[in-house]
Amino acid sequence: MNLILLSEDDFIGANCVQLQGRRLKHATEIHRVSVGDQLSVGLLNGLIGKGSVTALTPEAITLEFHLDLKPPEPLPVILILSLPRPKVLKRVIISAASMGVKKIVLINSFRVEKSFWKSPLLSKERIDEFLTLGLEQAKDTIMPEVQLKSLFKPFVEDELPAIITDTLALVAHPAAVEECPRSLNQRATVAIGPEGGFIPYEIDKLAAVGFRPVSLGQRTLRIETVVPALLSKLF
Amino acid sequence: MNLILLSEDDFIGANCVQLQGRRLKHATEIHRVSVGDQLSVGLLNGLIGKGSVTALTPEAITLEFHLDLKPPEPLPVILILSLPRPKVLKRVIISAASMGVKKIVLINSFRVEKSFWKSPLLSKERIDEFLTLGLEQAKDTIMPEVQLKSLFKPFVEDELPAIITDTLALVAHPAAVEECPRSLNQRATVAIGPEGGFIPYEIDKLAAVGFRPVSLGQRTLRIETVVPALLSKLF
Repeated sequence: MNLILLSEDDFIGANCVQLQGRRLKHATEIHRVSVGDQLSVGLLNGLIGKGSVTALTPEAITLEFHLDLKPPEPLPVILILSLPRPKVLKRVIISAASMGVKKIVLINSFRVEKSFWKSPLLSKERIDEFLTLGLEQAKDTIMPEVQLKSLFKPFVEDELPAIITDTLALVAHPAAVEECPRSLNQRATVAIGPEGGFIPYEIDKLAAVGFRPVSLGQRTLRIETVVPALLSKLF
Repeated sequence: MNLILLSEDDFIGANCVQLQGRRLKHATEIHRVSVGDQLSVGLLNGLIGKGSVTALTPEAITLEFHLDLKPPEPLPVILILSLPRPKVLKRVIISAASMGVKKIVLINSFRVEKSFWKSPLLSKERIDEFLTLGLEQAKDTIMPEVQLKSLFKPFVEDELPAIITDTLALVAHPAAVEECPRSLNQRATVAIGPEGGFIPYEIDKLAAVGFRPVSLGQRTLRIETVVPALLSKLF
């Protein structure tokens, strides 16, 4: 937590918040703050700045804050990710959110195990928790949007064409002839399949709506390695 | 495990191996192989190819193999990493090995907790296990080398100058003015600090032996995100 994310619910005055639970624990146990100390804070979907500790009890920490800086620029990318297994999902969402991805669509594909869709980690509360961890990591405040699309074909045929409008649409595909481009200066939509890759039918469907298959090289990488590697190559 | 890594100890004939334990379990439970099926195999520090299942019992799987392909090219990089906390270490080593890093030096730095150096995950057996997972992931066979250097100053002053000879030496530093270069066509040595970064004294010491501080941008990323992001930007 490199920044404490504040929300309107925390306000006890115009520039004053009171925090309990995880954020209190972080301030006292990791930062070991005392009254008078400053912490990096940011308002959910707003500016970032500093909070001064004005009161501290075992139950709550009170901060008076001053916000004056914009959060870091988002990455101009939409991430379409075949649903990873739950314990990987958490790490991938934290990682993508920390890198500045603001829209993630989790989709089904042939090689996604059906049980993954029943994971309690897919609840809005848990996903928001992972996104928050990513934002706090990168000192960002702009909450990304995560959509779940459990049917591949209707999503690709009916919804994806509108999503990728005005973006360069790429699908990571180990068998692709074209190398992944670098240092884009345009918005992109990037689709990443499960570890074994999308099946040919899925690649064809994605290509039919405008995705270009690109390769990241000969090595098969884990999803949690591919996501930062691909985003870092593109931007 | 996208490739089963074989070692000389597994040989029961010139082109025949017998495997138990983790590799047997993987072949039967994940690949659900029967006699006659083929699996990707590779000889530790040697070629890759195919193994045909010639016998299968609950205790062992026997493969006759044929090796004819070179493993994928290594990344021309030496990774100098301040020791991450143990559970992150495992993921980072797997990830770096899967991307083709062949030399990793784990070093101390001011912000590394002393207790990390006592972790049982630093034993040669455990590190080799993580490296093997990375190789199997990327269908590689060339075992990387991992060194542990628990004293910062003597390592940087006495050993690092020889290590970085003929490489571009970069240290990831959030406060650096220079952006991280892209698409290098030369060998590199890359130093990555703990999450809070190297302290100024450490940056100065690294700069004194020839490291250029470079920034990956405004966002503070987790070590497991930084490593693939940085390697992917450089190569």
